[in-house]
Amino acid sequence: MRRVAVAGIGFTKVGEHWDRNFKELFAEATLAALKDANHMEIDQLYVANMMGAHLQGQLSMGAITAEAIGKPGLPAVRIEAGQASGGVAFHEAFKAVASGINDWVLVGGVEKMSDLLPEAVTSALAGAEEQDYTAYTGVTKTGLSAILHRLYSHEFGATPEEIGWFAARSHDNAVGVAHAQYPFKLSIERVMTSPMEADPIRMMECAAVADGAAAVLLGPADKIEAGIEITASTVATDHLSIAARKHPLTLEAVKKAATKAYEIAKVEPRDIDVLEVTDDTTIDGVLSLEDLDFFEKGMGAKLVAQGATTRTGEIPTNNFGGLKARGNPVGATGLYQIAETVLQLRGKAGSNQIPEAKIGMAQSMAGVGSTCAVTILRRV
Amino acid sequence: MRRVAVAGIGFTKVGEHWDRNFKELFAEATLAALKDANHMEIDQLYVANMMGAHLQGQLSMGAITAEAIGKPGLPAVRIEAGQASGGVAFHEAFKAVASGINDWVLVGGVEKMSDLLPEAVTSALAGAEEQDYTAYTGVTKTGLSAILHRLYSHEFGATPEEIGWFAARSHDNAVGVAHAQYPFKLSIERVMTSPMEADPIRMMECAAVADGAAAVLLGPADKIEAGIEITASTVATDHLSIAARKHPLTLEAVKKAATKAYEIAKVEPRDIDVLEVTDDTTIDGVLSLEDLDFFEKGMGAKLVAQGATTRTGEIPTNNFGGLKARGNPVGATGLYQIAETVLQLRGKAGSNQIPEAKIGMAQSMAGVGSTCAVTILRRV
Repeated sequence: MRRVAVAGIGFTKVGEHWDRNFKELFAEATLAALKDANHMEIDQLYVANMMGAHLQGQLSMGAITAEAIGKPGLPAVRIEAGQASGGVAFHEAFKAVASGINDWVLVGGVEKMSDLLPEAVTSALAGAEEQDYTAYTGVTKTGLSAILHRLYSHEFGATPEEIGWFAARSHDNAVGVAHAQYPFKLSIERVMTSPMEADPIRMMECAAVADGAAAVLLGPADKIEAGIEITASTVATDHLSIAARKHPLTLEAVKKAATKAYEIAKVEPRDIDVLEVTDDTTIDGVLSLEDLDFFEKGMGAKLVAQGATTRTGEIPTNNFGGLKARGNPVGATGLYQIAETVLQLRGKAGSNQIPEAKIGMAQSMAGVGSTCAVTILRRV
Repeated sequence: MRRVAVAGIGFTKVGEHWDRNFKELFAEATLAALKDANHMEIDQLYVANMMGAHLQGQLSMGAITAEAIGKPGLPAVRIEAGQASGGVAFHEAFKAVASGINDWVLVGGVEKMSDLLPEAVTSALAGAEEQDYTAYTGVTKTGLSAILHRLYSHEFGATPEEIGWFAARSHDNAVGVAHAQYPFKLSIERVMTSPMEADPIRMMECAAVADGAAAVLLGPADKIEAGIEITASTVATDHLSIAARKHPLTLEAVKKAATKAYEIAKVEPRDIDVLEVTDDTTIDGVLSLEDLDFFEKGMGAKLVAQGATTRTGEIPTNNFGGLKARGNPVGATGLYQIAETVLQLRGKAGSNQIPEAKIGMAQSMAGVGSTCAVTILRRV
């Protein structure tokens, strides 16, 4: 198995792109990644997209996006794993290069959510839950997170405000980020007085509807100058229903993917300098931090509130705003996380730079933990 | 890159499974493949499915099917490439083992179409065409094939009956096939007097709505006794719109994938003993035969009518009935084709056995050729 590195990254601004379709967003991000790498030849394209069938009625996005970037004919395939589509597609791209079967592999994620009525998007997002046993009840993804939020507070005595701090911290990091959907501060007071979305989760604790695309070009490490090496890429799944799990507050898919990634990369959580986690709601972010083994179970919310995830804290997290503030175009999100980690490891994160960042981790999660992809990257 | 072989195959009967959902069908096929291989440990699961989002509202099928087969936690991902989903998922599974990253990879395809109204299925099938430029006109997949059918007759002087023979030949091969949806003969007279579906294509020239699941277990060739080796697995795409192509009657994706596969496997069309092609309509089957380079362009229909694809013909094709008669549960179809090819190469095809079959090919195609996966298998 040969070593694989990131040769280039690209992304669009996250937001409501009323004037552009998914193909245009995809082309902007992927062509930016090729330009960044100064390398235009590719062997294989992976496309991460979650809700194209629900929202645009569109399948066959592999062939369509190959054509959209001016490369009709290219081997291309769409990967779907709910909100983890981006991270899982990256994993497939990594394997394609590591195997020696492909040399230059482009992986792009795209989601176009803002053309639709909010209820259509909510219903499509619930497509990542079991239709027969869970979604048919009418529960939303946020509703499921709300169950975990209540249980977390009950078991560990965390206050709603401590959990809410995750959103405020994310917004702090988005200030000045050109590609962020909401590049401004949001005080904990604003978070905690925003309307209820799914009691006890408030609107300002949830990522919003967004359009965007992000892309990464991978290649053999020995052919890339000053590349960022992929030292581990793992995927795991879990029971979809939280009732079927060992314990609802333990995200086994996250634990499994992370444990394996640490082992492969031969690092421990304390070696990680920069981290991107999946905070489509605040409680998802808190549980992720714990099951990635950065904080003890039950301590995450308290430590986030105290500042452990800020730029000068123990583990600088969601350094460009995360899903909440940079934005969450779901199928693309896992690739934004990886591209942002690469920016940090290159030392090109501008005013968001974490000094001396050498090892970074990105965690891309679907639903309330049904699929999780973990990537560890290292500056060489 | 290490050698990869098929360790086991499994599939359900194709038909209208009103009493079972997609998870149950998937479990039946995949567990049969594991039993066939006498090997229960797997590292990775790939799930091929085209229309789950359209028809069941279901995403995240990777995690769901991992749970459905009693392996929650397993790395699992859904692959979608329209009707080529099965062939493309097989390609990903092949790469995973060839790379040495995974040892035992299970790839299963499933589609559940019969719970829905026919118009919902027709609309979902059109999801594989460009929504912005093609599908919005209301044209169906069969309608697009009808355009090619007319042009083919015009350019090459083929008669509708010659093209219609593809369906009659497929049905001949389905007689006595336990897993076939329509295991009976269909005379050319019945084909040519059936109602018009999309003029000049008649209903009995089209694959029907079907449910089914098929699966293949792949592993390292040196660990499998009497395995069937995968000597080539390729994927290519093309412009989705037939108007954008070099010539509407040349399926460039098929040509590209096949040319590369012949090169990698170091064989020529005349070396292939058994063939499975994509005949969701008769004309798709005819064009596939030509662009896989078995017949000269323009000669396919005539030669099929004359018997060149029968069991004793030049290239025994669709030996268990193909999409028309074995059936076409779209996301699973590419894996039925591969499983059936394995049966032939094992010499276990019963009354459908082609004597001395040593090298087989399967072609899995989406739309009117937007994506094509080609697999070449060999008895070792």
